[in-house]
Amino acid sequence: MFTVCCEAHMTKVSRNANMDKLQAGYLFPEIARRRSAHMLKYPEAQVISLGIGDTTEPIPEVITSGMAKKAHALSTLEGYSGYGAEQGEKQLRAAIASTYYGDLSIEESDIFVSDGAKSDISRLQVMFGSNVTMAVQEPSYPAYVDSSVILGQTGQFQKDVEKYGNIEYMKCNPENGFFPDLSTVSRTDIIFFCSPNNPTGNAATREQLTRLVQFAKDNGSILVYDSAYAMYISDDSPRSIFEIPGAKEVAIEVSSFSKYAGSTGLALGWTAVPKELLYSDGFPVAKDFNRIVCTTFNVASNISQAGGLACLSPEGLEAMHKVVGVYKENANIIMEAFTSLGFSVYGGKNAPYVWVHFPGQSSWDVFSEILEKTHVVTTPGSGFGPAGDGFIRVSAFGHRGTVLEACKRFKQLYK
Amino acid sequence: MFTVCCEAHMTKVSRNANMDKLQAGYLFPEIARRRSAHMLKYPEAQVISLGIGDTTEPIPEVITSGMAKKAHALSTLEGYSGYGAEQGEKQLRAAIASTYYGDLSIEESDIFVSDGAKSDISRLQVMFGSNVTMAVQEPSYPAYVDSSVILGQTGQFQKDVEKYGNIEYMKCNPENGFFPDLSTVSRTDIIFFCSPNNPTGNAATREQLTRLVQFAKDNGSILVYDSAYAMYISDDSPRSIFEIPGAKEVAIEVSSFSKYAGSTGLALGWTAVPKELLYSDGFPVAKDFNRIVCTTFNVASNISQAGGLACLSPEGLEAMHKVVGVYKENANIIMEAFTSLGFSVYGGKNAPYVWVHFPGQSSWDVFSEILEKTHVVTTPGSGFGPAGDGFIRVSAFGHRGTVLEACKRFKQLYK
Repeated sequence: MFTVCCEAHMTKVSRNANMDKLQAGYLFPEIARRRSAHMLKYPEAQVISLGIGDTTEPIPEVITSGMAKKAHALSTLEGYSGYGAEQGEKQLRAAIASTYYGDLSIEESDIFVSDGAKSDISRLQVMFGSNVTMAVQEPSYPAYVDSSVILGQTGQFQKDVEKYGNIEYMKCNPENGFFPDLSTVSRTDIIFFCSPNNPTGNAATREQLTRLVQFAKDNGSILVYDSAYAMYISDDSPRSIFEIPGAKEVAIEVSSFSKYAGSTGLALGWTAVPKELLYSDGFPVAKDFNRIVCTTFNVASNISQAGGLACLSPEGLEAMHKVVGVYKENANIIMEAFTSLGFSVYGGKNAPYVWVHFPGQSSWDVFSEILEKTHVVTTPGSGFGPAGDGFIRVSAFGHRGTVLEACKRFKQLYK
Repeated sequence: MFTVCCEAHMTKVSRNANMDKLQAGYLFPEIARRRSAHMLKYPEAQVISLGIGDTTEPIPEVITSGMAKKAHALSTLEGYSGYGAEQGEKQLRAAIASTYYGDLSIEESDIFVSDGAKSDISRLQVMFGSNVTMAVQEPSYPAYVDSSVILGQTGQFQKDVEKYGNIEYMKCNPENGFFPDLSTVSRTDIIFFCSPNNPTGNAATREQLTRLVQFAKDNGSILVYDSAYAMYISDDSPRSIFEIPGAKEVAIEVSSFSKYAGSTGLALGWTAVPKELLYSDGFPVAKDFNRIVCTTFNVASNISQAGGLACLSPEGLEAMHKVVGVYKENANIIMEAFTSLGFSVYGGKNAPYVWVHFPGQSSWDVFSEILEKTHVVTTPGSGFGPAGDGFIRVSAFGHRGTVLEACKRFKQLYK
């Protein structure tokens, strides 16, 4: 894997054994690598990326104006500010609390503004430490499992089953309606749950989440609920875990502006940690998270925070809904394309991801065939865990013309 | 410390024992708390903050214009971009490499752009894991020790000596010219070293750093070198550890834009990890750091990155030097004030911090007396470790008028 010249100085520091447990590359850089290789092979091809969930539509002007205004203000004596509070600016915390948790008694002080959900997931893992056990949906966004491996919560990767030891995988597939059979799930300290789900695109119902909260409560578990795609929900599925009675005593919610307003590049998210959530000795989890944030993080960029505040103005919210609407229509177009070709298609309705079934095939084979024959980059389902094998995740993030072109190529390939 | 109602649901998750080892509050939030209490007590007082190292001068317009332009571009089809590379934008990485490491053969690909030095220190600790041993200057910026405690690298806090077990503290005081006597320092895996130092304001000389690099090499240690204040150096002390021959085989450098251009709020820094730095098995440290960055971090805000790029243009560099010059003059004014009052004063010449000696007194007592009698917030030296007791750190970040006023009050108090 690597070669070292005979003359090189080596330190006497042992490599962290947990890093060595990690398998291959992190999924998305690996896809980027294959995409680059493909472009080298076909320099003339019009490559379309429906792979990584990266937004493509310009940020609404009401939001960028807010940020430009803040940038200019920073060069004036009156408008200048340095470090803000580690937890985020008061006004933004209040706006998040009232916009997303208005009736749910999640308060301004429960909100920790951050540079994004992925960073917060890792900070939560650092806070929990290496002695907790964790459960995760399978398939799932790789950051939950990989951060758990890095922190030393897991055993080795078991090649035969393609799973890490000491993680409870909760299988989510068409057979169980993408909601795990909790009667077969062992108790763990932490349960990661993402809804609307990345990659399957499925949103859990109120009844399912009520069962999940009860399951966490019965087991004394902490539920880390990732709602980064909540704004894509079209039906009456809950937008927040805190819509479920009793959730404040068992759950943390991680969320983000990234997928709402084209703001993946702004690096702005938040985590809500209710004061009611307690460790077994009665110590409030929020107190430890506050300490983690103060010690291992500075602040989210103040210009991005100004953007977040603009997002939550009435005009900003309207603009965000419009952008989200564009992606949701894209999802519809992709769903219709694959459905018309006879594939079983999931997700798409409450999420910007369409989960297409290729029964009996390897995801990476399908990924490669699609890339080779249509020049479209997708994401292989097995990248999210072995239960994702046989699936491809197609992202609805793309300009309309590109999405239509990709669907045309899919239709040529699979007609 | 906390009370829990008899009716409350408690999870069965044990609190991370490492979190419980941490002492009191993180230093700066504690100071903020005391400052707020003081302002409640004296609502009419003109409180001056020379405590936390937070910049006060407006960001030069060449930099904010760059950011505003980027913000506006993000609302256009042509100018829009989503997630950038986790490692930072190519152009910014290249500009950092050529501006700060031009002759030192640190390359674009060795640079990881981040949301700041504090976050990178924590990410490095997560990468190293819980089985390494570490050494740290004493006194030192609290994030090195606290992140080490959180990761489980240390023993318990020993109240009698006010130190954690299993950390090698390298005492830096006037007697040793603020450079540790390496002959008394035990071997550790990791050595944190900050120069120009926070809080003492001392910059290590070329000869001292040559010894330090040799010490790390002989011991097979990894040196994590924090150069966040390098631009404040006035004499010929090295600005980068990589000026020392052989450093690339032993060192990582963490740095930041925060203290250069009033950009503490932009959350933008970088870490340089040379390819030549290897674990004991020959595995490149940079490969693991890249994995950590991809898995636990998204990107630094793209608008902040545009600001960073503007910083490194010829006009941006000139503007940054001007701002840094203002703070350096402030440091001079503060040094002169305390010197004229007969205090022994250190730092200030190569750093925005002045380290004032109050022999035989407790730092917190001095802090409280200064706050009570002059309404000026400083930082108690003991907040950086017991060797800092008897010292006060006075920050040079402040408007000129405020700094002059603070010095006037110091002169009234200590005349």
